[in-house]
Amino acid sequence: MSQFLGGVCKGEDIGLFTDFYELTMCASYFDNQNFKPATFDLFIRRLPANRSYFLFAGLEQVLLYLQSVKFTEQHLDYLKRQGFELQFLEYLRNFKFTGDVWSVPEGTVAFPNEPLIRITAPIIEAQVVETFILNTVNLQTTMATKASRVVHAAKGKSVIEFGLRREHGIDAGMKVARSSYIAGCKGTSNVLAGMVYDIPVFGTMAHSFIMSYPKELDAFRAFAKTFPDKSTLLIDTYEEMAGLEKAIMVAKELETKGFRLGGVRLDSGDLAETSKKVRKILDDNSLGYVKIFVSGDLDEFRIAELLSKGAKIDSFGAGTKMGTSSDRPYLDVIYKLCETMTAPNVYSPSMKLSCDKLTLPSRKQVYRYKDSDGNYVRDVIALDSEKVLDAEPLLVKVMSEGKMTYTLPSLNQIKDFASDNLCRLPDKYKALTDVEMYPVELSQELQELVKILRERLLETR
Amino acid sequence: MSQFLGGVCKGEDIGLFTDFYELTMCASYFDNQNFKPATFDLFIRRLPANRSYFLFAGLEQVLLYLQSVKFTEQHLDYLKRQGFELQFLEYLRNFKFTGDVWSVPEGTVAFPNEPLIRITAPIIEAQVVETFILNTVNLQTTMATKASRVVHAAKGKSVIEFGLRREHGIDAGMKVARSSYIAGCKGTSNVLAGMVYDIPVFGTMAHSFIMSYPKELDAFRAFAKTFPDKSTLLIDTYEEMAGLEKAIMVAKELETKGFRLGGVRLDSGDLAETSKKVRKILDDNSLGYVKIFVSGDLDEFRIAELLSKGAKIDSFGAGTKMGTSSDRPYLDVIYKLCETMTAPNVYSPSMKLSCDKLTLPSRKQVYRYKDSDGNYVRDVIALDSEKVLDAEPLLVKVMSEGKMTYTLPSLNQIKDFASDNLCRLPDKYKALTDVEMYPVELSQELQELVKILRERLLETR
Repeated sequence: MSQFLGGVCKGEDIGLFTDFYELTMCASYFDNQNFKPATFDLFIRRLPANRSYFLFAGLEQVLLYLQSVKFTEQHLDYLKRQGFELQFLEYLRNFKFTGDVWSVPEGTVAFPNEPLIRITAPIIEAQVVETFILNTVNLQTTMATKASRVVHAAKGKSVIEFGLRREHGIDAGMKVARSSYIAGCKGTSNVLAGMVYDIPVFGTMAHSFIMSYPKELDAFRAFAKTFPDKSTLLIDTYEEMAGLEKAIMVAKELETKGFRLGGVRLDSGDLAETSKKVRKILDDNSLGYVKIFVSGDLDEFRIAELLSKGAKIDSFGAGTKMGTSSDRPYLDVIYKLCETMTAPNVYSPSMKLSCDKLTLPSRKQVYRYKDSDGNYVRDVIALDSEKVLDAEPLLVKVMSEGKMTYTLPSLNQIKDFASDNLCRLPDKYKALTDVEMYPVELSQELQELVKILRERLLETR
Repeated sequence: MSQFLGGVCKGEDIGLFTDFYELTMCASYFDNQNFKPATFDLFIRRLPANRSYFLFAGLEQVLLYLQSVKFTEQHLDYLKRQGFELQFLEYLRNFKFTGDVWSVPEGTVAFPNEPLIRITAPIIEAQVVETFILNTVNLQTTMATKASRVVHAAKGKSVIEFGLRREHGIDAGMKVARSSYIAGCKGTSNVLAGMVYDIPVFGTMAHSFIMSYPKELDAFRAFAKTFPDKSTLLIDTYEEMAGLEKAIMVAKELETKGFRLGGVRLDSGDLAETSKKVRKILDDNSLGYVKIFVSGDLDEFRIAELLSKGAKIDSFGAGTKMGTSSDRPYLDVIYKLCETMTAPNVYSPSMKLSCDKLTLPSRKQVYRYKDSDGNYVRDVIALDSEKVLDAEPLLVKVMSEGKMTYTLPSLNQIKDFASDNLCRLPDKYKALTDVEMYPVELSQELQELVKILRERLLETR
């Protein structure tokens, strides 16, 4: 049974959810008796086309993971069969994450190269946890970013996350609902996410419901009988205008019983034109209270287009394209070494020079400058040791020696924080295409350090 | 703890992993005392750009789910708070899937509109299970299809699935490893998938390993000490040719101890040109046995380009782009009603007419015609009641009255079956772009039925 859930049944079972190279590197660190602390930055290398910011999400899962990650006897047996040495396996048997962690809060608007999570731990520990952390931050930040764009495009009309059937598996189904809610969606179709995360759930009916009755009108009446005060009727199974006519009959029947039809839904065809016609006919029939809900291949571009054509839509169901971030289903989230301890309590900065893949050395902090109204003006990435005035440091300490030192905010608090962050980001940085780039600078001291290290590395390696 | 795994800890906990509308429809069926059997087809509506076939995967998870899906007391409490009636909740308390299921085997090459899974069950049961089935078939078929293209482009060079860090969550990490292996990858970097699915695991080292040592050579030596007989050294952390020089030193040191360096890895830069230079220098140093492994933004297009430029590469690590199917991270997998029981043992065909979204009515079978060598020539979708000669029916019975009637093949058997299927699909249908379409026809009887139903529906709805 565990197999169909991907072998992951308990938090403790997740130790092996890692890339094999993390374990070969760790075996070599162990073999060479390297237990020295090191610092890693998690950051996103670059903005994809049509993105101008990231909405950071996933920290809660990172912290729960770091508190619980371990290796079971079954894992150790498996690793033994893969040829790992017994002493290393003994080390893994007692594995526990004991590091310090700094992070920006979930719901923070962030930009390329800014450290989002900073981990200082014995190098084996810091390395073992890389894969899971990248995996959940990539998923949730990709999805929160995408959903925030969809919500922005909807200009205040509500957006519901409807993509469960095509999101990538069980965990994605849950995390997309969570991230989309953080990003401003009103709710989800995923009932389990509704229960687990206390997110409002929404749903109407499928075409199959209509088709299972000999006549469309019978189907509408049957549904309205069960949900007299909250039915949304899907009117496009055969032909929308004929469907609308029957929905209006049912709405009138409901009125005689003291109820009101909630809405009608369109899932195909020319949604802009049809929604206008439907709105007019509903209004002409004194059904101004009946809402129009649309779905079908919606993303930020399609929603913006519909609204620009004057579509009369109250609510958008955004499915596959939002739930898979289909135009860009990943971000360049990476986790890079930035310092190692080279003598007791002496830390030396590390940097990579590969073509186009330079990294920023040493422990860093991100500072955000705001204008007098609190709107974001520019960010500066600085050395952690620098004093920077008049700007807000974004990274906060969330874990000390493996213990959480941070009160996890509720999901609604994260949602409010995200909404506040997105508000303070000026509109010119939120255009859907051809967007202006938000300025992120390196402090003078950090620039100097990069320069010195580059010269030194080119000489000595 | 359960929360960070998405609330899904046991197979039994998955009942609520469904769209809210499945439950509202079912509540209405229950309220209207509709327990009549119905048949649903799972199929893929159309081919995305740059796809010419689908490689079907996910059946095993569908069957394990159908055997175990149920609603827990926690689920029922939650649904009660959502306003569902007690009698319906009582029905859900005893919910069990009791239907018949037909499916094409995993690893089958399939085409648009062909029923891949066909479920006949009391309509509430058939509706409740829709979301999970679509979710896992979409994920696994999307990924198996993408990976089969990458493997095809690699022309016999090995491909390893390396995308765990950017796949969409835990379940996706597991299922992408499984689907990619089915599609012909040699293994995965995901250690948990290696253990759970018995897939070979592979990995080398990250840049951080090199950077954690004062000198690149020290890092190479430390790693080779731990893995003298199977080291692959990453040579591009600072500058590839300088890295290669040090790798050669380590290879020669290993030789004096009776060992052989396994390989070198490139992860950036001009992989075609660099691999040629690296190969020549290795050969000039009598290191013909050292393999060249490359990674970095690889997909079918990039691999084809590298090979067309004469790159000297032994093995490809395909990560993010394959593991998210980044050019098209979903398929139009749908689940549509095709018949309902309208009187005892009388089934009537159902069909939807929405713009561009016509469905095929009645219970159907897919027949595949082959040439004398066993290569695929064309498919015909026919009514299940038709007799079709000289062609192989693809759908087999896998579940009867909720009990599995099918022996689940091993993963290696599925992989072999997929390989055989892909071999029998002529090359003209496997081009990466501008591909010829494989012919799929509707039988005469099915065409007649569509015509009659369309006329009848336009008259009466």
